[in-house]
Amino acid sequence: MAEEFHGYAAFDKEGILKPYSYTPKPLDDEDIEVEITHCGICGTDLHTIKSGWAPAMYPVIVGHEIVGKVSKKGSKVNDFNIGDRVGIGFQVYSCGKCDECIAGYNQLCPTRVFTINDKWNNQYQAHGGYADKIRAHSNSVFHIPKEISSAEACPLLCAGLTTFVPLKRHKVGPGMKVGILGIGGLGHLAIQWAAKMGAEVTAISQSDKKRDEANKFGATNFLNASDPNDVKKFTHSLDIIFSTSGSSNTDWTKYIELIKNHGTLVLLGVPDAPVTIPAFTFLRFIKVEGSLIGGSQDMKDMLEFAVKHNVRPLVQITPIKDINEGIKTVDKGKAKYRVVLEIKS
Amino acid sequence: MAEEFHGYAAFDKEGILKPYSYTPKPLDDEDIEVEITHCGICGTDLHTIKSGWAPAMYPVIVGHEIVGKVSKKGSKVNDFNIGDRVGIGFQVYSCGKCDECIAGYNQLCPTRVFTINDKWNNQYQAHGGYADKIRAHSNSVFHIPKEISSAEACPLLCAGLTTFVPLKRHKVGPGMKVGILGIGGLGHLAIQWAAKMGAEVTAISQSDKKRDEANKFGATNFLNASDPNDVKKFTHSLDIIFSTSGSSNTDWTKYIELIKNHGTLVLLGVPDAPVTIPAFTFLRFIKVEGSLIGGSQDMKDMLEFAVKHNVRPLVQITPIKDINEGIKTVDKGKAKYRVVLEIKS
Repeated sequence: MAEEFHGYAAFDKEGILKPYSYTPKPLDDEDIEVEITHCGICGTDLHTIKSGWAPAMYPVIVGHEIVGKVSKKGSKVNDFNIGDRVGIGFQVYSCGKCDECIAGYNQLCPTRVFTINDKWNNQYQAHGGYADKIRAHSNSVFHIPKEISSAEACPLLCAGLTTFVPLKRHKVGPGMKVGILGIGGLGHLAIQWAAKMGAEVTAISQSDKKRDEANKFGATNFLNASDPNDVKKFTHSLDIIFSTSGSSNTDWTKYIELIKNHGTLVLLGVPDAPVTIPAFTFLRFIKVEGSLIGGSQDMKDMLEFAVKHNVRPLVQITPIKDINEGIKTVDKGKAKYRVVLEIKS
Repeated sequence: MAEEFHGYAAFDKEGILKPYSYTPKPLDDEDIEVEITHCGICGTDLHTIKSGWAPAMYPVIVGHEIVGKVSKKGSKVNDFNIGDRVGIGFQVYSCGKCDECIAGYNQLCPTRVFTINDKWNNQYQAHGGYADKIRAHSNSVFHIPKEISSAEACPLLCAGLTTFVPLKRHKVGPGMKVGILGIGGLGHLAIQWAAKMGAEVTAISQSDKKRDEANKFGATNFLNASDPNDVKKFTHSLDIIFSTSGSSNTDWTKYIELIKNHGTLVLLGVPDAPVTIPAFTFLRFIKVEGSLIGGSQDMKDMLEFAVKHNVRPLVQITPIKDINEGIKTVDKGKAKYRVVLEIKS
């Protein structure tokens, strides 16, 4: 009888998760099988189950902030032992040999397989972490340092990586004035990274509600973008803004005006709608660019930095049986700041 | 009686130019007065007289690719002599002392004065080169090398600078695959610069009409963007695209798809409409950025490069009395490739 993994899948755009079993890909020589103990809920999971960006391959099991223990490994896997505590983020395969992989951009590998809503060799569907087990290539599996709890490790594997990598790439450090737009799952980590890297961090929010929390995360300044005086005060003041906003209604013009001449707007992840950039932006030598998770070395660097500088997400732990409740909490923007499912205690 | 300069001004949005006289700013210690012999017609002049981007300060004399002879100079001007052949581009003043000026970005000086449709100290209107004379600060006036004719020098002062500077900033050279979008007043110079810098240049046009000319300018490849096979052939192949397109209808998605992962789209000048960038762009680490003319040192570097590598615009010379005809030629996109007014022979 074919081996089966058991999880919770969405069956249509309504995005209600129900039990579902599937036949996993065969365990190849360089693969690792992980028995999942925890999995974070990320906005991308919600987009996927609702076919927000593109039609999902239903039934689809999402979840890509996965922590668990190595339960099986291929014959060529040497860096991991059975029982090791490990994590998997948004990617389960990269070749490790192409130009992008060699440059550290495993996430752009032409043969990459993402953790959810993707296919292995156009054959086995890649299903995510709202399940008992998962298989991944060993270069997409990472040791979780002992200092980090499993629940706290989960959000680091996607939200943490997504925010850490562009900050590192832009050499954020002392003397830099860094804006973090949005104080949520991504933003509360981005503020911590940037502060620990030594930058002057301005947390940018739509109201005053998160002022105190932003300061606790390490923000030097707080900008309430609904307050015209605040906006005026910070006009042309920031070297760079990292936007964690995925909203279609984001007023990019307003935020670009906060950036100094020659500065940069970095969009983390995928906005819902095309980004509209006003013409005058180009007269001030503003750059707009994207980012997408991180490569394998980035993941190791991020976890090391988190240990060294004590960066941790705030998590709410929810048992897997309440998965639909957990998703609702995230969908309503009520997570403080990240919901993690406990799958096996 | 107040001194007067005489030119051709637009009096309303219709943009018909008629004779007009105005009182120039006083000649300050560091200013130069130029008796104009030639002035190029640039798309920005047309936008301005029609209030395309913003309401113009009518009556407005445009023209900002100005060549002539020094007719007067302030007491502190040492680098120029009466009778010297000089040029003025889109800017007539920068302080020379602020951070932007020191960094070579005179065009971003907070106290800058542009050549047309601007004010000196919120007082004297800055009028352009479709006139007999103009005054400018000496750091916005440039010696024209003897190798370059006055008519050919004109387009270099705006179109040339605008295209040369971002190529230089991006270190265009051997081994780089550079796309130049649009083969017009700006594009025909951009192709030449990029080719002479040693890059593999792909000229991108909307039809096959300019294929031979693009090759003569130095393009290695020609991409007819209306031909899906051509578009497919060049997909993800270019390191960087410099767009000279100002059209509101530009399909940025199509052109961004020609760029490799990690590549850059540089927008020269000001597009008519906001630029809409598709979300997937950000997943490939594409950067989008602007540019705006160049600084004082850039202008000197550009002229030197033009002499050394024999880069010249193609110009059609039109007498100043036919100014409205010249403007029509440019407006209809029929200039081959730049119209220059002869003001004094």
